[in-house]
Amino acid sequence: MYGRTYYCGEMTENAIGESVNLKGWVQRRRDLGGLIFIDLRDRTGVVQIVFNPEVSKEALETAETIRNEFVIDVKGEVVKRDESTFNPKIKTGTIEVIASEVAIINKAKTPPFMIEDRTDAAEDIRLKYRYLDLRRPEMFEVFKMRHDVTKTIRNYLDENGFLDIETPMLTKSTPEGARDYLVPSRVHPGEFYALPQSPQLFKQLLMVSGFDKYYQIARCFRDEDLRADRQPEFTQVDIETSFMDQKEIMDMTEKMMVKVMKDVKGLDVSEPFPVMTYDEAMARFGSDKPDTRFEMELQDVSEIVKDSNFKVFSGAVESGGQVKAIVVKQAAEKYSRKDIDALGEFAAIYGAKGLAWMKVEEDGIKGPIAKFFDEEEVKQLTTVLQAEAGDLILYVADKKNVVADSLNALRLKLGKELGLIDESKFNFLWVVDWPLLEYDEEEGRFTAAHHPFTMPVREDVKYLETNPGRVRAQAYDLVLNGYELGGGSLRIFERDVQEKMFKALGFSEEEAREKFGFLLEAFDYGTPPHGGIALGLDRMVMVLAGRSSLRDTIAFPKTASASDLLMKAPDEVDSKQLKELHLKIGK
Amino acid sequence: MYGRTYYCGEMTENAIGESVNLKGWVQRRRDLGGLIFIDLRDRTGVVQIVFNPEVSKEALETAETIRNEFVIDVKGEVVKRDESTFNPKIKTGTIEVIASEVAIINKAKTPPFMIEDRTDAAEDIRLKYRYLDLRRPEMFEVFKMRHDVTKTIRNYLDENGFLDIETPMLTKSTPEGARDYLVPSRVHPGEFYALPQSPQLFKQLLMVSGFDKYYQIARCFRDEDLRADRQPEFTQVDIETSFMDQKEIMDMTEKMMVKVMKDVKGLDVSEPFPVMTYDEAMARFGSDKPDTRFEMELQDVSEIVKDSNFKVFSGAVESGGQVKAIVVKQAAEKYSRKDIDALGEFAAIYGAKGLAWMKVEEDGIKGPIAKFFDEEEVKQLTTVLQAEAGDLILYVADKKNVVADSLNALRLKLGKELGLIDESKFNFLWVVDWPLLEYDEEEGRFTAAHHPFTMPVREDVKYLETNPGRVRAQAYDLVLNGYELGGGSLRIFERDVQEKMFKALGFSEEEAREKFGFLLEAFDYGTPPHGGIALGLDRMVMVLAGRSSLRDTIAFPKTASASDLLMKAPDEVDSKQLKELHLKIGK
Repeated sequence: MYGRTYYCGEMTENAIGESVNLKGWVQRRRDLGGLIFIDLRDRTGVVQIVFNPEVSKEALETAETIRNEFVIDVKGEVVKRDESTFNPKIKTGTIEVIASEVAIINKAKTPPFMIEDRTDAAEDIRLKYRYLDLRRPEMFEVFKMRHDVTKTIRNYLDENGFLDIETPMLTKSTPEGARDYLVPSRVHPGEFYALPQSPQLFKQLLMVSGFDKYYQIARCFRDEDLRADRQPEFTQVDIETSFMDQKEIMDMTEKMMVKVMKDVKGLDVSEPFPVMTYDEAMARFGSDKPDTRFEMELQDVSEIVKDSNFKVFSGAVESGGQVKAIVVKQAAEKYSRKDIDALGEFAAIYGAKGLAWMKVEEDGIKGPIAKFFDEEEVKQLTTVLQAEAGDLILYVADKKNVVADSLNALRLKLGKELGLIDESKFNFLWVVDWPLLEYDEEEGRFTAAHHPFTMPVREDVKYLETNPGRVRAQAYDLVLNGYELGGGSLRIFERDVQEKMFKALGFSEEEAREKFGFLLEAFDYGTPPHGGIALGLDRMVMVLAGRSSLRDTIAFPKTASASDLLMKAPDEVDSKQLKELHLKIGK
Repeated sequence: MYGRTYYCGEMTENAIGESVNLKGWVQRRRDLGGLIFIDLRDRTGVVQIVFNPEVSKEALETAETIRNEFVIDVKGEVVKRDESTFNPKIKTGTIEVIASEVAIINKAKTPPFMIEDRTDAAEDIRLKYRYLDLRRPEMFEVFKMRHDVTKTIRNYLDENGFLDIETPMLTKSTPEGARDYLVPSRVHPGEFYALPQSPQLFKQLLMVSGFDKYYQIARCFRDEDLRADRQPEFTQVDIETSFMDQKEIMDMTEKMMVKVMKDVKGLDVSEPFPVMTYDEAMARFGSDKPDTRFEMELQDVSEIVKDSNFKVFSGAVESGGQVKAIVVKQAAEKYSRKDIDALGEFAAIYGAKGLAWMKVEEDGIKGPIAKFFDEEEVKQLTTVLQAEAGDLILYVADKKNVVADSLNALRLKLGKELGLIDESKFNFLWVVDWPLLEYDEEEGRFTAAHHPFTMPVREDVKYLETNPGRVRAQAYDLVLNGYELGGGSLRIFERDVQEKMFKALGFSEEEAREKFGFLLEAFDYGTPPHGGIALGLDRMVMVLAGRSSLRDTIAFPKTASASDLLMKAPDEVDSKQLKELHLKIGK
């Protein structure tokens, strides 16, 4: 019984009068007045099938045995429905198929949860029965969108001369970056491959090969403790070019994203995208990936309050910290003292020792700290902050990074809570002029802010040895609605600069040679200037699909403990397998 | 100095008179009559740059310091060459660029081998300096072709409703098939992921999800001892559909390959492709992937010689074996007795205990075994074999599989040696009606000829328990020029059939449940009929590009001992890493 003539959801009134053959899943069955109605579902949608004893008694009898999620094969004729029974909720709501034949292809037990978009099934059940979870139409839509996104990206890059080149998955463990997943070698006892955290070094080597324009939609791996928005394996759109400067690479990336937005979302996004320096982003938003869909920016009031009687403020400035504020417009009445206490507890998660606040009224400011400020200070504060009667002002006084982290978190929380975010907006933003290196307190050394192959700004190279924290990177991150879509940089292509970089990272010459000798050597044989970018595909799809979890954009995702609940991975293996790999389990 | 105006190899006479900016590698430098000529190379080809002191003394002076493989940036004017200096060997041979400025972007040491297509560099040197090996234009062409092949495949599948869905790399070790690469889990001590040998189970689960049409160009892994045409990681075009029968899947695959041949090779391949049963392929070619570009088929003469005086022949038939022959047309004079002895040694590699032969002459047959055959037998043999004067007949008498293996190997060897193969031909062939199971002598049980999820021919299901060797599979392999491009099958989609299959493979109920319980359970929730195919991309590109090694189609391949000579992987890792993974090295 092969020969499907239509997908269920793709039939229109044009098919009226046709004999059709449909195959799909039973969404639901209703018995009414001697007739049986079945909503038949496939990936395109649902159509109503009618079993009428006057058309086929046999088909009706079979239909009586049919339950939800049975796979059936139906032949019948398409007719227009009575207008009174039109169903505007489905695309095919004005037609139905009068069944002349039906065959049950496969039966189904009652699923552990209903196959419908608004499911309240627990996530671990959904993951265990992922094949049922993926039957929900909204899940299919995400993967259709993911397909469309990669198609647009591939076509764009192909048209622009980029070649899709695959790089190895079994590669070498590198000392920088996140923790590697290791793969023991059977042939070389005691040795290991590592799964790639990114194809970074391979794409740079392809530039040394003169491939000029490379891309790959590449699987990458990081064995890190997982947060809600991380997965042990993830996919990035990985791009590298030779002989292009930062602006050219940013332009090329922008045009690609404009095309994605047009093809996938039907939206016209204007370019060039806004560009903000890292310092500005941190100052205005306390974040290196600001959500610019709403205001409520961070404002520095340190200068105004540095001599105030409120010791929390003046003390913070005195000890090298900051006092910054956000103004929550017309929110004074919405937030009780208790609500504000809760905000303070929230800010504490990000290290803030306290959350000071004022409510602005027609005749001055109110709140427990109001008494510490004289009229002049109040006037300066409200003027600088452009605060008006009815506004709530929140302050954090602390070390620079605590102020940034906590006010950024508060800003995002309040933006959502107060409905300040226009969810239909897609705000792209470039963040540039990153620091090349960050001081890692724990390790007591500088680490690469992006990765060790990022090109310093030319005039800052001289500080690599004397003042590494001051060196800026030729790096650029692309931000969309407060999510980091990805980042890129120009790369070091000269051996001496790369050696200085390794030194700044605290590598001995021997370590550098041992781990990256092949790269240093490659620089000796005619390496072109090159750079690129990597965009997180899972996250891009998540934002475009309006989802809040990466797990909704990955067909078979892992849990927070990196488990596959469906197949049960990881799992124990035969001792024979371990023996072949020269491995024992234990400390 | 950014702003390249042309790729070197893409300039034509249309550019004459233009000021251009080129960037690339110095292929070679010649000094002649006070001028310097540089062949500048990028991925598109080469163009000649002329340094003339009358145009720029400074540029000439810089050019004097330039060596092979330097990366340079040139500005100049495009002129037509003197007709006497046209170079027909390069696309740009009628023009040259008169340099007004030049900058050395990066210097280069003398490479360990010349960057040119006909290299005699040892392969381990080429792999160690892969980034230089890939500079050779013929290597770039292979990867350009690979890009074009995948582009065509993706577009074709997209147009036909297939969705590109990614499946996990960190998955579960399965008992059937080749040896898995394992990945130790840090979070779950003593447990392991496995890298996928194929996305088989995931793509089947996507069919259970109703995704209907899936594809993925998927990386797969097998930890096997490597032969020349194997790599530990390889790429397959992985396809699965629901509600299509074998013929529909074969048709769809054919049309895809026809498009690849047209788009990539410019060739019109006619369809439908020829179809041959497994039994016929084995009988006529001794191979399940016959190269049909030439004849010299295997012919069974067991019936004719079963009572002959030549005991090697009659004895082989008597003990249940076969006698088969190939006729090497007009080769009697080309092969001396010594040559034929060498062929016998070659056949011995494939298990043949001897190679019997006859030379056909006008007045009968010659050769050491001629005397054993009477006139009638000779007449029958030459008639059946259609052997004429001048032909050489080679016989192997042995067990069926030895006859097949050795005569297949001889046929291929002689076909190449005698130039019988038309290298411009691309002969596709379907091999169908495979056995479902093969008896594994070593393991003393049946194993799956394709994989344990292959659907038996319906009427053979009843033999699964009584006579497993007799069960045919609904499976199909696609062969091109004697290479297996890939194989597919309809899949089992009913729990009871799958359980019978596991039983035939010798799994206990508990083993089946433990390893594949999720699949058996999925079958309970409405699984559609489904099937698909997987084509080896590396091999496809190898055949289309006319290369003989898979290593030429993979950007960063591994050696026969699964090593990456460039990055030195696998390698030792820090003891800290092993500790985190709860592992110790040792027996």
